[in-house]
Amino acid sequence: MKLTILFGGASFEHAISIVSAITLKEKLSSFELNFVFLDQDHLFYLIDSDAMKAKFFSSGDYKKMPQLSLANGAFVQKTMFSTKEYSDVVLNLIHGADGEDGTIASLLDFFSIKYIGPRTDASVFSYDKRYTKYLCDAKNIKSVDYEILNANEHKNINIPFPIIIKPARLGSSIGVSIVKNERELDYALDTAFEYDKSVLAEPFINGVKEYNLAGFMADGEVHFSIVEEPAKEEFLDFDKKYMDFSRSEQVLKADIDDAIVKKLQLRFTQIYTGLFEGSLIRCDFFVIDDEVYLNEINPIPGSMANYLFEDFASSIEKLSLSLPHTKRIKADYQYIHSISKAKGK
Amino acid sequence: MKLTILFGGASFEHAISIVSAITLKEKLSSFELNFVFLDQDHLFYLIDSDAMKAKFFSSGDYKKMPQLSLANGAFVQKTMFSTKEYSDVVLNLIHGADGEDGTIASLLDFFSIKYIGPRTDASVFSYDKRYTKYLCDAKNIKSVDYEILNANEHKNINIPFPIIIKPARLGSSIGVSIVKNERELDYALDTAFEYDKSVLAEPFINGVKEYNLAGFMADGEVHFSIVEEPAKEEFLDFDKKYMDFSRSEQVLKADIDDAIVKKLQLRFTQIYTGLFEGSLIRCDFFVIDDEVYLNEINPIPGSMANYLFEDFASSIEKLSLSLPHTKRIKADYQYIHSISKAKGK
Repeated sequence: MKLTILFGGASFEHAISIVSAITLKEKLSSFELNFVFLDQDHLFYLIDSDAMKAKFFSSGDYKKMPQLSLANGAFVQKTMFSTKEYSDVVLNLIHGADGEDGTIASLLDFFSIKYIGPRTDASVFSYDKRYTKYLCDAKNIKSVDYEILNANEHKNINIPFPIIIKPARLGSSIGVSIVKNERELDYALDTAFEYDKSVLAEPFINGVKEYNLAGFMADGEVHFSIVEEPAKEEFLDFDKKYMDFSRSEQVLKADIDDAIVKKLQLRFTQIYTGLFEGSLIRCDFFVIDDEVYLNEINPIPGSMANYLFEDFASSIEKLSLSLPHTKRIKADYQYIHSISKAKGK
Repeated sequence: MKLTILFGGASFEHAISIVSAITLKEKLSSFELNFVFLDQDHLFYLIDSDAMKAKFFSSGDYKKMPQLSLANGAFVQKTMFSTKEYSDVVLNLIHGADGEDGTIASLLDFFSIKYIGPRTDASVFSYDKRYTKYLCDAKNIKSVDYEILNANEHKNINIPFPIIIKPARLGSSIGVSIVKNERELDYALDTAFEYDKSVLAEPFINGVKEYNLAGFMADGEVHFSIVEEPAKEEFLDFDKKYMDFSRSEQVLKADIDDAIVKKLQLRFTQIYTGLFEGSLIRCDFFVIDDEVYLNEINPIPGSMANYLFEDFASSIEKLSLSLPHTKRIKADYQYIHSISKAKGK
């Protein structure tokens, strides 16, 4: 089976996406893979499988590879005398901006290229943490309290300390701080506002139980990963947390009641259905007094959360055979004809 | 001042967009205009100003015009020996799919082309009427009750007749029906489901007061149009309603209290701020017992609601000089460097 891995992007998670792609090269070795790199200047390059090493990108060596452009149905490589098309299903592996904010989804939809990844609307609801809260409210899904703060706005936070401060539109813990008291607040806000003009404040719940669950829809049903209890630190720093992106060993199931697993799966299905079709997402939940709270939706999780699936390669295959059809609307000139008629022309 | 009018699109409102563009050619005659047509096959054409007549498009004659492609910062016309760039501010005038669903916004953002029109997230919240309801709830803005129906799902509607049935993702009254009783329901649902797999049911309020207000943000403040009370019919049919798209004569202010105008402006500002920057939108409101209810957001209103502005051309100029900057994020390889270091490589 053929698959094009699209990675990179003009994003704070650019380097992380490269590491994710290198990990998937190994995990999807049974596939016939192409690698398409989007650099920070928004140019696409076709990368030799042998060149898939982190330094190839950080050094700028990738610029020696052939450039691609987008055309109807395919990435296209143009040389003086020929045109080669790459029209396989794309796995959108661009984390953060470009990949998760709806841009790449819109581009691939516009050019009628089939892809694994969140659609434009799903991207908007998961990329911006404020909109994830809107979604939770609309779907009656519990999530922790929050307040929104905007840059250049003075507002008191009514949530008691400790609180957690997050830029609205960044994943990967970038710009996130735990604030224990008033004194630490200004610095945390300055840090978060460096990345976004909107910031969320939430209560930081010490020792809360965290569970991650990934899944995707194929053949009309949701296929779940195992539930993982992620490694607990008071706060995961960027490096530790982002080992996720190079993770490839399957993890052990969390040691929890079946009843909780069922609740997590139910919440996952409510979030996914009607919005995330076409993508494999990871939802990070809190469990407080046996109640499930959504913390975050990762519509393109690090290394596609491969380590949560018993047979990751066949999961990706199943999903790629069950992608939504976006039928392009045919234009119709009836309106113009009826105006012309009315005008007697 | 230069401006590129982008119109057409693979949308049920394709023909309407052509009529909008022809209307704006007249209303923005003080500008140096270029016209870029997106056809239903997603090809861009540069259209001669003299060719801007409805039949030129319905006949397929537009295909004789030069094709354009998207590149960093501009639409590009390539000939055998040269490349010509069109890098002026774009006015996104594609109604419905493509233009209002976030696709064109993402494309123009991706290629760093400045444009008047809703950004990707604003598009998602206004294009899908379900998400407009989420937005209203989140921002504490009243809107009429609703129920969501999905295709292939049997569900009773609990709203008493008469009700109005609307496809979730279509503007321009397409697929919309008023249903007076149970007997009429199946046909109305069939019609709506022809256009979308999700449909909204809302109470139809006979004789409700309707008011339209357009506006845009420039230099940090919202500039409002006059308030219009749209022509009342029990139900506006497509042709009548869509005379909007060719409207160019300024309308008279609605005869209403200043207090109501202030309320409408306040609601408009709440909806617009932090989401619709860069666009000129028209909000359609209901007023029931002096309370303002949002009916619909038109992020690319027919002929840009030119007829509601006292000086439309200078409004567009003001807006085009006050467009949001989307700073492209610079990638950073610190993460890769720190992994390499940790591995001792």
